[in-house]
Amino acid sequence: MAANAARLLSGPAVRALIFDLDGTLIDTVYGHVFAWQRALAEAGLPIDGWKVHRRIGMSGGLFTRAVAREVGRALSDAEAAQIQKRHGELFRELLPERRPLPGAVELLRYLRGAGITHGIATSGRRPEIDQSLVALEVPAETVVVERGDVLRAKPEPDLFLKCQQRLGVPPDECYVVGDAVWDLLGARRAKMLSVGLLSGGYGWDELISAGAFRVYRDPADLHRSLDELGIA
Amino acid sequence: MAANAARLLSGPAVRALIFDLDGTLIDTVYGHVFAWQRALAEAGLPIDGWKVHRRIGMSGGLFTRAVAREVGRALSDAEAAQIQKRHGELFRELLPERRPLPGAVELLRYLRGAGITHGIATSGRRPEIDQSLVALEVPAETVVVERGDVLRAKPEPDLFLKCQQRLGVPPDECYVVGDAVWDLLGARRAKMLSVGLLSGGYGWDELISAGAFRVYRDPADLHRSLDELGIA
Repeated sequence: MAANAARLLSGPAVRALIFDLDGTLIDTVYGHVFAWQRALAEAGLPIDGWKVHRRIGMSGGLFTRAVAREVGRALSDAEAAQIQKRHGELFRELLPERRPLPGAVELLRYLRGAGITHGIATSGRRPEIDQSLVALEVPAETVVVERGDVLRAKPEPDLFLKCQQRLGVPPDECYVVGDAVWDLLGARRAKMLSVGLLSGGYGWDELISAGAFRVYRDPADLHRSLDELGIA
Repeated sequence: MAANAARLLSGPAVRALIFDLDGTLIDTVYGHVFAWQRALAEAGLPIDGWKVHRRIGMSGGLFTRAVAREVGRALSDAEAAQIQKRHGELFRELLPERRPLPGAVELLRYLRGAGITHGIATSGRRPEIDQSLVALEVPAETVVVERGDVLRAKPEPDLFLKCQQRLGVPPDECYVVGDAVWDLLGARRAKMLSVGLLSGGYGWDELISAGAFRVYRDPADLHRSLDELGIA
């Protein structure tokens, strides 16, 4: 009883970081936007760039349905699958090299060295994400949860919950770090705190409104500001 | 004296619209971002997509200098010119078709039919912008001020002031309509009101903070909302 009361009084300490991948650690958002826009236009579904941009980071299935609703016609499963496949081709063609965002490699290296629990949870899929993980110098032992590991991607909480389970840390001891409102919405649904990064091209206010506790420019800025998060 | 007092009491009526082009009337922002990012990477100046995005719409000269500062090295004039040339090539290659934003063609047609004074003021250049003007069905008699018509592009007020002069309307009777903070900053400096559009991928708050009186999604949304602007 006394121990329980003490636990309630002290509350959980936030001690783990769960990172999104595209736009948060690696500079791929604009490549994705452009590849989606072209794949959709080829399929007779022209859609504005900004509407694609604001939907990046949600699950590919949700994304294609959202786009279909936007342009006002239904998509068959085969058509949706074909568009996703074409997006992947165009993305690899347009962006053959993956470029880590400023400070991303150094931040992950620091967290490993300092023994701060962290993982990656992405709506992307293997093998498509492998090249990004290599560019980020992520070792095999780092917990990486990808689209294929869960039934439902962001903004459902599944990716974050699976990551937290594999890290062995309760949800209320985790921060989600992401660049899209889908990360922040997923974090809320997973009962986690969240931090936004501007490096995916959302505005500060959009990230704060979606629930981010703080917003930083990019991984380098987050690294400099870790003390502001009270990470133990 | 009496006439003067009456003029002061009634104040100017806002009655003209000055439109930005890329991201405001035509869906080219993400193509520009991607083309700039590749042109810069080829020149050994890799830079994050979001930083390019937030600089689109300023003059090309200012843009390349801003990027050089960001990556921490000076650019010769020849190098800057070469990057701008390469950006143009990549842009035409990546985005061979220009797609008007939703409602843009209809809005311009309505303004012509209703006799509402309007013009276009863009940091873009002829002949690069010609294809966009054709796609927007802009007739030859519409006032279009482009980069080559002024000494300094946005966020300097020159493009807007030249447009207002050619329209024969004083600055305080003009609204600038734009998607980028550079349009809104230029409008302030030209002593004009401004309206923001989300169709260039900035957030609502960024546009309001930069001085927009109202923010709409795209030209179609602006068209439906013209009464909110008190356009005579």
